[in-house]
Amino acid sequence: MVKINENFLKLPGNYLFSEIAKKVNAFQNAHPQSRLIRLGIGDVTLPIAPAIIEAMHKAVDEMGKKESFHGYAPDLGYEFLRSAIAKNDYEKRGCDISEDEIFVSDGAKSDSGNIQEIFGLENRIAVCDPVYPVYVDTNVMAGRTGSYSKETEQWSDVIYLPCSAQNHFVPELPKETPDLIYLCFPNNPTGSAITKEQLQTWVDYANKMGSVIIYDAAYEAYITEENVPHSIYECQGARTCAIELRSFSKNAGFTGVRLGYTVIPKDLVRGGASLHSLWARRHGTKYNGAPYIIQRAGQAVYTEEGQTQVKEQIHYYMRNAKVILEGVKSAGFQATGGVNAPYIWLKTPDQMNSWEFFDYLLQKANVVGTPGSGFGPGGEGYFRLTAFGTYENTVEAVERIKNL
Amino acid sequence: MVKINENFLKLPGNYLFSEIAKKVNAFQNAHPQSRLIRLGIGDVTLPIAPAIIEAMHKAVDEMGKKESFHGYAPDLGYEFLRSAIAKNDYEKRGCDISEDEIFVSDGAKSDSGNIQEIFGLENRIAVCDPVYPVYVDTNVMAGRTGSYSKETEQWSDVIYLPCSAQNHFVPELPKETPDLIYLCFPNNPTGSAITKEQLQTWVDYANKMGSVIIYDAAYEAYITEENVPHSIYECQGARTCAIELRSFSKNAGFTGVRLGYTVIPKDLVRGGASLHSLWARRHGTKYNGAPYIIQRAGQAVYTEEGQTQVKEQIHYYMRNAKVILEGVKSAGFQATGGVNAPYIWLKTPDQMNSWEFFDYLLQKANVVGTPGSGFGPGGEGYFRLTAFGTYENTVEAVERIKNL
Repeated sequence: MVKINENFLKLPGNYLFSEIAKKVNAFQNAHPQSRLIRLGIGDVTLPIAPAIIEAMHKAVDEMGKKESFHGYAPDLGYEFLRSAIAKNDYEKRGCDISEDEIFVSDGAKSDSGNIQEIFGLENRIAVCDPVYPVYVDTNVMAGRTGSYSKETEQWSDVIYLPCSAQNHFVPELPKETPDLIYLCFPNNPTGSAITKEQLQTWVDYANKMGSVIIYDAAYEAYITEENVPHSIYECQGARTCAIELRSFSKNAGFTGVRLGYTVIPKDLVRGGASLHSLWARRHGTKYNGAPYIIQRAGQAVYTEEGQTQVKEQIHYYMRNAKVILEGVKSAGFQATGGVNAPYIWLKTPDQMNSWEFFDYLLQKANVVGTPGSGFGPGGEGYFRLTAFGTYENTVEAVERIKNL
Repeated sequence: MVKINENFLKLPGNYLFSEIAKKVNAFQNAHPQSRLIRLGIGDVTLPIAPAIIEAMHKAVDEMGKKESFHGYAPDLGYEFLRSAIAKNDYEKRGCDISEDEIFVSDGAKSDSGNIQEIFGLENRIAVCDPVYPVYVDTNVMAGRTGSYSKETEQWSDVIYLPCSAQNHFVPELPKETPDLIYLCFPNNPTGSAITKEQLQTWVDYANKMGSVIIYDAAYEAYITEENVPHSIYECQGARTCAIELRSFSKNAGFTGVRLGYTVIPKDLVRGGASLHSLWARRHGTKYNGAPYIIQRAGQAVYTEEGQTQVKEQIHYYMRNAKVILEGVKSAGFQATGGVNAPYIWLKTPDQMNSWEFFDYLLQKANVVGTPGSGFGPGGEGYFRLTAFGTYENTVEAVERIKNL
């Protein structure tokens, strides 16, 4: 008789977005006249930039002709894309990362879920609280997290790194030593950034302890401040302790196009084994490469034309972020984020909890956001607004919030 | 200190295709004049059919316009694709599979590697010998296979199902009871097919034992004979014991386009848990959907025009298969496959082992194939030729083999 993976049954239901949808539908049925504005969504809304569209058309044509057809892709990804990444995302920032340390994939969600496979089950993980749920859930599925307490909403074997207004949403070094440390900066959901000095502290700590940092830099394109690192490899010694995850979803609008990459330096060795080799074996065994057409789309992001166009999109979203941040602050809310990230993290007013504020905003302003408690107990009393709407809707939503 | 997943270190090196490349390069350097023909490759060579190219161009245009842009895809895949699959691949064959039992993915390799995650580590797997290496290697990585013997080239905890000329390359029920049974028909590498009655025996066995069959039907488009099932769901009772993996790689040439799907019937329950729900959770947590453009490409495969065009491609490859099969037989070789699959499985002559025959064919006929021993010890003394070359090259390669 086959046995299922019992770890899956430990996962609490993931009701955040379905609960939101349910409440929104109920409201709309009760108030068919009201015009809802959604600032809760983490998906982009601007279309793919023209330079990228053109590159995809060209690649589609290539696939239709015998002489330019492409079958199975190379395991790590096409050289044309990996070299563009190495040059633009690393060399230009003074980071020592070579193209054969880059593994092209279908996105940072897959990579952030799969990366734990190359590590033993006995490792202890550390995550920020609040946190992007994929880091925890994939370790639950693997059996690394112990038991779940409904009361604390925490796992017995996970080390939580509290992120609150007190530490400006940047975690401090933990008392217990973790083996695997998940960090995401600029952060989802809090929109906070980490300075180069702060990140250097983590890199030094990981090197000292023999830990590995899994650094999710999916939102690096939104960084506007000088002293905020775009890559963990801007820090000294990161090549011996850090894996970096990158995405094309938010910097070029690829949420429905699907492309990302993982960097594992060849200097990253644990227990005598090269993590680069382990991931190469994992990649080669369970994955067959991102589509040729999509890899050509990724390459187009790095052309001069592509860079100009995607930067315009980022500016568009960051103008929204500014409107939200300044608007809610002038309305008397405490809020952070929105300067180096497309997320604004709001303290709920009047002791409301996250879901109470969700209901309040929905009912009174007809604006939809995301309750902070959906990202972990540390998110309770907070609320996430995103900059991915249209400018007009964003302005109107903020006006409504101001008039509450 | 972080610990690596030690199971990865148990994997013997995967030298098959790199060893082939090394030998081929050495030969070419020594004989720059000779014209090699490659019949070893498992990749397709015909370009993507016009109806599919057109659909991709249209989808690319949609992604470039605000009003038709598509962000994150639905977890299971777009309804337009799942309904086309349900109708064409199942309803038309009398199989009771609904569209919400279909999970769209980036290909059967990923799915066949990932599917083991929803099962406990204590399960025993059974695989055919010879076998597509991904089934075994992904279970090695998970820690389900015990220890490896260099002598037997087998894992202590894996149940091997020998497939040889004696049983026409269709495995018999094993003496020990496996929990997870991997079956691939039409088979890679042997090119053999299974009859509906033979497959029914396996379905009945799995239902009786509580086992689950993971049925890889990636090559179903090549079936030409009447009594060979295209889907395991043509068998009575398969809904309570079988998961089916399908690919667009070989039926529509998507090796570089990347699309596949997995079917898990809602009736498939083990230990009180729905395997459909477990896979949905896995899919939703670690994957973000196949690209919109690629899902539109998949939909185009099922249009009338698309079907006519991809069937022409299959006929082209199967004409090659016929040329190879009849050619090598008339040259005195024992060979099977090639009737319901694009692979021809050759018995090496004169007690040569697989690699000796590889060298012989390379040196004497300048033809490259794949040594059967690369697919497991049961493949020793066999050799795989594939039908994915051009017709002209295939005819010439067979002429050369005949003239040996």
